[in-house]
Amino acid sequence: MNRPNIVVLGAGYGGMITTAKLQKMLGSNEANITLVNKHNYHYQTTWLHENAAGTLHHDRTRIKISDVINFNRVNFVQDTVVSLDPSSKKVQLENGELTYDYLVIGLGFEAATFGIEGLKEHAFTINNINSARLIREHIEYNFARYNNEKEERQDLLNIVVGGAGFTGIEFVGEIANKVPELCKEYDIPREKVRIINVEAAPTVLPGFDEELVEYAMNLLEGKGVEFKVGTMIKQVEEHKILVEKDEQQEEIPTNTVVWAAGVRGNSLVEEAGFETNRGRVPVRDDLRPNGHDDVFIVGDCALIMNPENDRPYPPTAQIAIQEAETTARNVKKIVHGEDNLETFKPDLKGTVASLGEGQAIGVVFGDKKLFGWTASVMKKIIDNRYLLKLGGVGLLLKKGKFNIFTK
Amino acid sequence: MNRPNIVVLGAGYGGMITTAKLQKMLGSNEANITLVNKHNYHYQTTWLHENAAGTLHHDRTRIKISDVINFNRVNFVQDTVVSLDPSSKKVQLENGELTYDYLVIGLGFEAATFGIEGLKEHAFTINNINSARLIREHIEYNFARYNNEKEERQDLLNIVVGGAGFTGIEFVGEIANKVPELCKEYDIPREKVRIINVEAAPTVLPGFDEELVEYAMNLLEGKGVEFKVGTMIKQVEEHKILVEKDEQQEEIPTNTVVWAAGVRGNSLVEEAGFETNRGRVPVRDDLRPNGHDDVFIVGDCALIMNPENDRPYPPTAQIAIQEAETTARNVKKIVHGEDNLETFKPDLKGTVASLGEGQAIGVVFGDKKLFGWTASVMKKIIDNRYLLKLGGVGLLLKKGKFNIFTK
Repeated sequence: MNRPNIVVLGAGYGGMITTAKLQKMLGSNEANITLVNKHNYHYQTTWLHENAAGTLHHDRTRIKISDVINFNRVNFVQDTVVSLDPSSKKVQLENGELTYDYLVIGLGFEAATFGIEGLKEHAFTINNINSARLIREHIEYNFARYNNEKEERQDLLNIVVGGAGFTGIEFVGEIANKVPELCKEYDIPREKVRIINVEAAPTVLPGFDEELVEYAMNLLEGKGVEFKVGTMIKQVEEHKILVEKDEQQEEIPTNTVVWAAGVRGNSLVEEAGFETNRGRVPVRDDLRPNGHDDVFIVGDCALIMNPENDRPYPPTAQIAIQEAETTARNVKKIVHGEDNLETFKPDLKGTVASLGEGQAIGVVFGDKKLFGWTASVMKKIIDNRYLLKLGGVGLLLKKGKFNIFTK
Repeated sequence: MNRPNIVVLGAGYGGMITTAKLQKMLGSNEANITLVNKHNYHYQTTWLHENAAGTLHHDRTRIKISDVINFNRVNFVQDTVVSLDPSSKKVQLENGELTYDYLVIGLGFEAATFGIEGLKEHAFTINNINSARLIREHIEYNFARYNNEKEERQDLLNIVVGGAGFTGIEFVGEIANKVPELCKEYDIPREKVRIINVEAAPTVLPGFDEELVEYAMNLLEGKGVEFKVGTMIKQVEEHKILVEKDEQQEEIPTNTVVWAAGVRGNSLVEEAGFETNRGRVPVRDDLRPNGHDDVFIVGDCALIMNPENDRPYPPTAQIAIQEAETTARNVKKIVHGEDNLETFKPDLKGTVASLGEGQAIGVVFGDKKLFGWTASVMKKIIDNRYLLKLGGVGLLLKKGKFNIFTK
């Protein structure tokens, strides 16, 4: 009996779907499957901005891995990956080492800080459950401090969000809904609080439909959000930032910078010696990098070009899930000795960005635009479909978003 | 028509009861009554430790002044007292100035820091609504930070309470109940968190019945509280403190020191030139300081000796309320031209200290000892009686503690 060792690194969208599929597709006498993850839970990265704003509890966002994966069938190792060595087929963990025959890398993203001074030290990022609830508590702590200070410290009340892509805009929508609640809790007049969204591109949601962008900006400005587009963050300090627009510089006092302006692949893949492009590994149609037929890469660490516009597919949950499905089928083929590996073909179903409770914008079915409440319902349908795919009806009922009028 | 101006400073127990009584006792053509307070709310100082631990919301603790005081009858000035000048009968406010004929000072307490190095800069005190909810958020923020730090920072999880008097013990009881909840919220093993109560005296609750003290310590130790008695805090830094016992020094890593080891009167009374003793003004039987027949002092700023043990009466809510009742009657006498002022005679009904939800210890009716649940019910009865006295049945129903099984 010579069962290959399949090791999956990371329980994000890519790693979880790959593992969940493999445990169904392969018999227990066909392969050893091992899933490695830092925590004993999976989480919906696309909901983290709500946890960070404090509008949705993080326990709604995370899912126990044991609720989805059968630990009698899959070895689960709760540990942190320290390094990968593709030449010796080994994975170094903080508390151990694993050897694989086939490796699936789903190690996710890191914030790309573009070398901006002080950003790494002073800005928060919406990366995971820990960092999301830290943002929630940081903002609340600053509001609690405000009325205890001798002087009016505006930096405690100014919330700066770097980046007006999907995560930036979605977070801004949630925090704009949360701020009035925080003001009430800490006896702070709403007009003293500023929410400032800084974007280097000339528009928010660059590349998105103009009419929808207009709708989003009007809605968010109505909730008191200030947009500074065409504006670069030059420097971040503990109590202020420096921004620049058209060579004019401005200082903004703030103790809260949430950086949502760019992601790159986990630096472990670069350190492992894979060829990378902005931290992501170019993979072939079969989702394996050149020269590594025993390695599949899924999710934010993988780089695949969209032939339609000659740009990489964006690092979204949708793509990661589809890559995972292809990967699971390809791993199965290899285990079964087949060499006609499947080609990855993304099926882009559309994009919906939430703007806070009951509000969203989106494009679906190719060119159908959605606004407001309709779009927010579509967003919940998308989220619920993922839960159904990952863990069936049981998981959907447990973690789904059913109330289309609220959360 | 020459109505005297009566000015009451502070809306704590003393100031509120004085004002509430005076508005009933004096006709509107007999006197102008003005109440000055920093906030538009009164609060139950004896509940603040629950707000600081996060086991009771501060809105339960505070009471809108307008719910108790009739603003058609009493002028309410929301402002901060900057200085008093008894010789010119003036009170300087941040945004104005008041002249009085009769002054009632109820400006409350400040923490006494005994010159301990770093205490003022780094320790928290349970002084008011703002500082109480700051402690709640500070502790929660540190728990949120813990799993985001590269190293295990024990200072984020160690909570040190300086002083094992009533406030210290009551806060320790609440925070011991809260910690398991925080551990669950932030994925922190309970055994990593330390709650350390440091007391310079050789026992906790010095002067209290020994059997009750034993009961309290056993109960709190069972919840994981560590007591360090006969131990002095020598120095407080941002991330640690230095304590000393029997000339042995020990460093304890902590970012959270709650100082509850002593209070003094508001330093404004000292600065006004009144004779003081540890920040409190010795007053005669009629609650006026020598040489100032137009000034009454109530609550924590007043010093009255207990002839039974030749020590000052403690700065408690009970004493403040009784002083306020005497003061109101004495002010009325003066306004009515009577000179047979009433002598203050405290009626000590007993003392109950809570140890967290459903638990307390106390001595009532002179020598009757109460434990556990019975004592906790008595504590609620005492609190409810105050609300009834202050604002009648309406206020009692709004803010009272009725559920004897929980809060």
